[in-house]
Amino acid sequence: MRTSYAVGVDVGGTRIAVGLVERKGRVVKDAKRLTPKTGPFAVVDAIIDLVEEVCSSVQPSEVAGIGIGVPAQIDFQRQSIEFCTNLPLAGVDVRSLVMSRIRQEVTIDNDGHMAALGESRYGAAKGARDFIMITVGTGVGGGIFIGGEQFRGSRGLGGEIGHTVVDLDGEPCPCGGKGHLEAYLGRPAIAAKGKEAAKQFKGRDILSAAGGDVDAVTAESVLMAARAGDPLAREILLEAGEILGRSLVGFVNIFNPRLICVGGGIGESADYMVARAAEVMQAEALAGRRDVEVVQAVLGNDAGILGAAALAFDEHDSREGLSR
Amino acid sequence: MRTSYAVGVDVGGTRIAVGLVERKGRVVKDAKRLTPKTGPFAVVDAIIDLVEEVCSSVQPSEVAGIGIGVPAQIDFQRQSIEFCTNLPLAGVDVRSLVMSRIRQEVTIDNDGHMAALGESRYGAAKGARDFIMITVGTGVGGGIFIGGEQFRGSRGLGGEIGHTVVDLDGEPCPCGGKGHLEAYLGRPAIAAKGKEAAKQFKGRDILSAAGGDVDAVTAESVLMAARAGDPLAREILLEAGEILGRSLVGFVNIFNPRLICVGGGIGESADYMVARAAEVMQAEALAGRRDVEVVQAVLGNDAGILGAAALAFDEHDSREGLSR
Repeated sequence: MRTSYAVGVDVGGTRIAVGLVERKGRVVKDAKRLTPKTGPFAVVDAIIDLVEEVCSSVQPSEVAGIGIGVPAQIDFQRQSIEFCTNLPLAGVDVRSLVMSRIRQEVTIDNDGHMAALGESRYGAAKGARDFIMITVGTGVGGGIFIGGEQFRGSRGLGGEIGHTVVDLDGEPCPCGGKGHLEAYLGRPAIAAKGKEAAKQFKGRDILSAAGGDVDAVTAESVLMAARAGDPLAREILLEAGEILGRSLVGFVNIFNPRLICVGGGIGESADYMVARAAEVMQAEALAGRRDVEVVQAVLGNDAGILGAAALAFDEHDSREGLSR
Repeated sequence: MRTSYAVGVDVGGTRIAVGLVERKGRVVKDAKRLTPKTGPFAVVDAIIDLVEEVCSSVQPSEVAGIGIGVPAQIDFQRQSIEFCTNLPLAGVDVRSLVMSRIRQEVTIDNDGHMAALGESRYGAAKGARDFIMITVGTGVGGGIFIGGEQFRGSRGLGGEIGHTVVDLDGEPCPCGGKGHLEAYLGRPAIAAKGKEAAKQFKGRDILSAAGGDVDAVTAESVLMAARAGDPLAREILLEAGEILGRSLVGFVNIFNPRLICVGGGIGESADYMVARAAEVMQAEALAGRRDVEVVQAVLGNDAGILGAAALAFDEHDSREGLSR
């Protein structure tokens, strides 16, 4: 049976957002709340409450299922959360816990994969069969589509593109490694550069974006100052774009994709950062692979919900033997 | 019809080697000669002569086809040679030229892909469905198997793993880029480090491996001195192993493979280099992905022939609708 709706759940470190989504990608009802900090069951309860809220006016039979995106490393085959840095969900069987209270099929996946699926179904990567999604936000993640399918590696843990070494003697990475892409592009890295700049006379726009308090400078302060035309803030983001571009060289040489889509809070804000990355990549990628389009993601805050809903539709259709 | 033999052709910058290969991977007859330096047609003529030589005592109907591995960037779908640094073969339709003289199906592919296929069919990666082959020789190349298939990217140009940026301000790479893996591991890089060492008192073993002439120091001098126990030569290769390991971190995080196979002239010689790479990778890869085996390739000089023959068998069988 061809159902009308799916539920997309986007579990973030700060908030949980849930949407009831039509097949064509319209969010017909949504709800969100701050992510509870009182343990895994509080998180699961919040998910269930929000799902019930958005589904209140539809019949269960109209719903294809529930997709849940988690900022975690997920063994997709086992549907288990293996590692989760910002939330206490590692080893918690979120899927079964939700299914035990709501009679719908539940599928979980990594948030970067959800963003990739969402952009490919409804956004800037629509129709692309071979593309790379990079989300630049607090962390750097994403997803890789090969021949129209999400690439998951041999155990479902693949596609973690934020943790490739781009600098041998590089900055420490939140994962414990050194010189990884995330150590240069994630919010903490941008904030650190912003703080450094804010201490200097030239960085006064960044400082005022943070209300005059150096310690309050965040990546968003830098983005805000850059939007207002501050050259130092732009320079910080252009440098990040340069490093992103250098890493794209390797991704393009390996994956030979048609399209690269840059999303996430930082990636969607700074078009000039993305443009610089594209320039740098095109100058250094091996000849013959350079005709790859680099675009910004367009789904914004809804990317997680839409990707998760798309996954729920796909899983439903594959259970029912329907083709897309 | 299930044929008995395939012909594998390994076109190198220095020599062309051709073998008549049984399905089980035994090379029953082989022939080689130096690669002609007098232009593309001389290379093609040499290939044809060698193929005729190894096939002289078998019936054409017993041969599944001819596979030709070229150190070039190849558009596999079009069977065209797009770029070729060491040989004048770019744009030359090697496949058609050989087929016009020998009535056999011909399939060409990149030499790194051939090595990956050869090791997966007959060598150290036998039976592995998800693995990465890295060839460390004059260049750094390889192939990526996903779900038992060679990964080629959207246009057949994928899998070029030697040209990922591992160091932002890094060494110039033969491809024109900067800080690529090949700039640290390829023969020229190892030779340069060997020369530097040979100029110092401590590097005397490397120097004597080169017959006492600093300018004659090659990567092979370093390998030879290391085999004889010279600590400085070993250190050069251990450092290369460390950099290889750092790059494996990214590959493992992205591909989540079961196995990594290191081959090529340098990769097959230096087991301690490969062991160091494995150590470094396992210490820095994201948790949950570290249980990947790292092995040395075993096919040696026959890797190219065997991989090319395996491709010819596969293409034959897929034309005939036979499964492997």
